[in-house]
Amino acid sequence: MAAWGERLAGVRGVLLDISGVLYDGGEGGGAAIAGSVEAVARLKRSRLKVRFCTNESQKSRGDLVRLLRRLGFDISEGEVTAPAPATCLILKERGLRPHLLVHDGVRSEFGQIDTSNPNCVVIADAGEDFSYQNMNKAFQVLMELEKPILFSLGKGRYYKETSGLMLDVGPYMKALEYACGIEAEVVGKPSPEFFKSALREMGVDASQAVMIGDDIVGDVGGAQRCGIRALQVRTGKFRPSDEHHPEVKADGYVDNLAEAVDLLLQHADQ
Amino acid sequence: MAAWGERLAGVRGVLLDISGVLYDGGEGGGAAIAGSVEAVARLKRSRLKVRFCTNESQKSRGDLVRLLRRLGFDISEGEVTAPAPATCLILKERGLRPHLLVHDGVRSEFGQIDTSNPNCVVIADAGEDFSYQNMNKAFQVLMELEKPILFSLGKGRYYKETSGLMLDVGPYMKALEYACGIEAEVVGKPSPEFFKSALREMGVDASQAVMIGDDIVGDVGGAQRCGIRALQVRTGKFRPSDEHHPEVKADGYVDNLAEAVDLLLQHADQ
Repeated sequence: MAAWGERLAGVRGVLLDISGVLYDGGEGGGAAIAGSVEAVARLKRSRLKVRFCTNESQKSRGDLVRLLRRLGFDISEGEVTAPAPATCLILKERGLRPHLLVHDGVRSEFGQIDTSNPNCVVIADAGEDFSYQNMNKAFQVLMELEKPILFSLGKGRYYKETSGLMLDVGPYMKALEYACGIEAEVVGKPSPEFFKSALREMGVDASQAVMIGDDIVGDVGGAQRCGIRALQVRTGKFRPSDEHHPEVKADGYVDNLAEAVDLLLQHADQ
Repeated sequence: MAAWGERLAGVRGVLLDISGVLYDGGEGGGAAIAGSVEAVARLKRSRLKVRFCTNESQKSRGDLVRLLRRLGFDISEGEVTAPAPATCLILKERGLRPHLLVHDGVRSEFGQIDTSNPNCVVIADAGEDFSYQNMNKAFQVLMELEKPILFSLGKGRYYKETSGLMLDVGPYMKALEYACGIEAEVVGKPSPEFFKSALREMGVDASQAVMIGDDIVGDVGGAQRCGIRALQVRTGKFRPSDEHHPEVKADGYVDNLAEAVDLLLQHADQ
């Protein structure tokens, strides 16, 4: 593999995944990953532009930012690209009224959306709310529509909490796709539209950006398909087999965000 | 389409799906489909051999047969081919110890199976027991195995109860397949092994048998791939679009089991 100086040449902006990179969720809100609070602070003191690009869909952006600030992170709502607000824009543009299968924590993001007489379904990481009854209700709504439309906020397979691996929204999206014989529209990583909106909001071209994430497919593969370089951290849901993934090869693997920031501050365009 | 006489020539044995053909499940056990009790009785008085071939995986065979007898059907346990007993045979043959994600009603079928220190997962139509917590536990067991093995008792998309369409085991199988990056082994229709064991138990060759079911893919498509003719009934989960299915064309469509039996008694090999 090329030297880091070559791999990081010309980087001007950094997209940071949140869960598994900044912190691991869990009991009592979760815990910061060692070194990540300082790493974000150092990055923000540099000339590099920084934006947080998350598939978090259990919490509103406000709640997520409050949690991260409590853990010590320097982060504000305006710096976060998240799928729920992006979905609201799409629903408004297309005049769609969703049946929501989402966690109560993110419901406030849909406060301005008409949910009467639904003509589509939106699912997010609903956690415990992925009960059989709630899944069956979403299924029945879809089956009653002439052209069923399903939005999924991300399609992650699982994430890591302090207590272990947890099923994410992706498996439930697949369940409804199969049950109804349809294909969901994914809002969030790895959707190219989502990365592009994060780049726009950061004001940096794809070729000058790097994504740092723990998900080899959603973060690394998704970013690379948009022409964004991508590093995988060995924290969060990282598994050693990711470094031999059959389809995706990161531009670099680092132990954690702290190491990624060390390398960026040494080698990126300052 | 050819005349019924031609389509049913040489039939000596009839495989009957149960849910959606004999009865629709639901509150208080469900309700017999009009004409089906008499149709089964007429079939059994004829020279045709009859076997029940079901993907029912919420109830033990004993409970299913008791329910059907209460609804008036002439049926006994020994006449039923069902996925739970077939799975037990496979587990014993391969020395596998399952983690069970199944409905309490079918758990007794696995009474003789060692479930300590599991090295595979078995899922069935668990209904309300498809909670997030139970799905996550099955997922975690699979992720801890070096070579995850998942058995699914059928892969139906949904079935019809008196109260409406209900998610079957298939969508949950797809969820775990996606979460773990694996492919499940299906025990039940449309698996060819399952149809073959039903034929063996009935003592009739594939070319002399006809399957009657409400599932265009699981019943009709599955049987046809084994060389068994198949009729779809317009009861249970049947939807008008099934008659224009892109991949599967039944050998005939009938309004219900009563009509199928009328035709068989007129045209099959007596």
